[in-house]
Amino acid sequence: MARPVVVGESEDRLIGWLRRREGRAGKPSPIGDDAAFLPPGGPWAITVDSQIEGVHFPSGLDPALVARRLLSVNLSDLAACGARPAWAFLALAAPPGFDARRLFSSLARACRTAGVTLAGGDLARNPERLVASLTLLGNRPVGGRWLRRSAARVGDRLYVGGTLGESALGQRLLTRGAAMDIRRRVFLPGDLVIPNALVPAAHRAIRRHLAPRAQLALGVALGRERRAAALDVSDGLARDLHRLCAESRVGALIEESALPLAPRFAELSRAVGEEPLALALGGGEDYVLLFTLPPRKAPPRDFPNAEIGRITPGPAVRINQGGVSRELLPLGWDHLE
Amino acid sequence: MARPVVVGESEDRLIGWLRRREGRAGKPSPIGDDAAFLPPGGPWAITVDSQIEGVHFPSGLDPALVARRLLSVNLSDLAACGARPAWAFLALAAPPGFDARRLFSSLARACRTAGVTLAGGDLARNPERLVASLTLLGNRPVGGRWLRRSAARVGDRLYVGGTLGESALGQRLLTRGAAMDIRRRVFLPGDLVIPNALVPAAHRAIRRHLAPRAQLALGVALGRERRAAALDVSDGLARDLHRLCAESRVGALIEESALPLAPRFAELSRAVGEEPLALALGGGEDYVLLFTLPPRKAPPRDFPNAEIGRITPGPAVRINQGGVSRELLPLGWDHLE
Repeated sequence: MARPVVVGESEDRLIGWLRRREGRAGKPSPIGDDAAFLPPGGPWAITVDSQIEGVHFPSGLDPALVARRLLSVNLSDLAACGARPAWAFLALAAPPGFDARRLFSSLARACRTAGVTLAGGDLARNPERLVASLTLLGNRPVGGRWLRRSAARVGDRLYVGGTLGESALGQRLLTRGAAMDIRRRVFLPGDLVIPNALVPAAHRAIRRHLAPRAQLALGVALGRERRAAALDVSDGLARDLHRLCAESRVGALIEESALPLAPRFAELSRAVGEEPLALALGGGEDYVLLFTLPPRKAPPRDFPNAEIGRITPGPAVRINQGGVSRELLPLGWDHLE
Repeated sequence: MARPVVVGESEDRLIGWLRRREGRAGKPSPIGDDAAFLPPGGPWAITVDSQIEGVHFPSGLDPALVARRLLSVNLSDLAACGARPAWAFLALAAPPGFDARRLFSSLARACRTAGVTLAGGDLARNPERLVASLTLLGNRPVGGRWLRRSAARVGDRLYVGGTLGESALGQRLLTRGAAMDIRRRVFLPGDLVIPNALVPAAHRAIRRHLAPRAQLALGVALGRERRAAALDVSDGLARDLHRLCAESRVGALIEESALPLAPRFAELSRAVGEEPLALALGGGEDYVLLFTLPPRKAPPRDFPNAEIGRITPGPAVRINQGGVSRELLPLGWDHLE
């Protein structure tokens, strides 16, 4: 969900190809994981991510909410490498009449809250829809290491920094007509029939989707560990776990029963005709960190971490479902059973 | 032309407002001129610029040409502050079926030629048209200064690094159906009636528009001067000269007869129903440097510089046309007589 691919070409393949190309040029490649490190291995992390109207968020969403979401999604990439965010640059392509000042203003405010300076912007006309790209620069904290996807070793324990699938469930509700305003008030569609007891869960899911929070503090804490691999779950646990395993040349075994789910998430999913496990494994846009630590190493405290499995000899990535283990394919929710 | 504005909001106004906002926050602002300097005043220059299909370049242009143009336009921003380009990040939003690999491949090659490493990219789906944003980082050369728009003083001489209006003329020809392929072969529309002797000038104009060259070496040379103000002419000489004067709190007087024009540019302009002076003053996308130097200071050698006037007490910006001086308004070509 998070990063729709151009027909016939996935971002993974394109980035891999680019990395090989640049590698051939003989220079050390700064192309990293969720961000690039500049100079290669150096103290700056840079990431670029876009939000496109009708693709990443519903058409007509308040520009102030678009701005916050754009920042959060980019912050999550910096969280995944253990960086502290510092500077932001916006490239905005918007249709005539779009309230660019509202977006800039909200972005500047959200940046300030996150300790980021909005340092520049480019404004252009895109007739049909809003396309907003943010470039974010972060620093490596003093005494910290960059988190890489390639640091996992056989025997490591596998964790996620929060619940899975909730954002994707919120996205389904938005597709059915739910909405949220700038004060985070949620409006459920009139024709949505769910038990009253599930309404708070529905509100939370929609907020989670439209206003995700990047796990920056967790990333910085992991950067203080001697060895931790990490990335942020943006395209669904299955796909992102495969990425981590591929970079580390290992496999993994996760436990279905250990996957952290939000309160009443499973009930609400079924009430709206969705399979909770499919959302949790493939829904995407969770923006929690997926990370590994050596065995007997406790994860950073004060975060809602859950241990979901362990690293195995590669390359298979498997899931244990009530004693039966099967292969977990690197697929989005719509391809999973 | 270069930076179409969202209705009711110009980029100048938005950047000015953003700078004031950030200024209030009490921290030194990195918001610079053509780029931001990070940390404020520090050794990195960063710029972001977008190219949008059907807005900045004709629909259906070869993705390889789009890539080169995108890079050149961004390099020109770095040239304007005297930076050496180092790293690039692409955010691409493209319709289904778009040949992203061709664009990436051409961009990586053009980057390498310019000494730039393409260090990352983001790929997303935009149903209607290509939106490509590039973030470019550059270094301050050893012993060099950042060029600023604010460094002009009364009495300084005013120069441009090359001819004016040619790119805008090329754009007009493209609008009428001209085209160019990846080998820079130009095809003029069958219904275009111009004297044969003007055909080479038409080819040059189209190449100039689709494949501009950033004046990086000139920017670096100017950065070695004790005092030089500069920016790149992207939105037309009139508009960009006003920007330079506003930042330096001065005025200017330019000589119509001193404006450098490409061979047979005036003749070709008239042959296709355009006013050469309007194109030269307001056409935009020239991507030459507009700069000032103290009097009796020769401009860097080996560049096609032309002295076009001098800095006067502000705030009026004037043009001398055959002995008659009139005010030059900060308008694009379509607003000029």
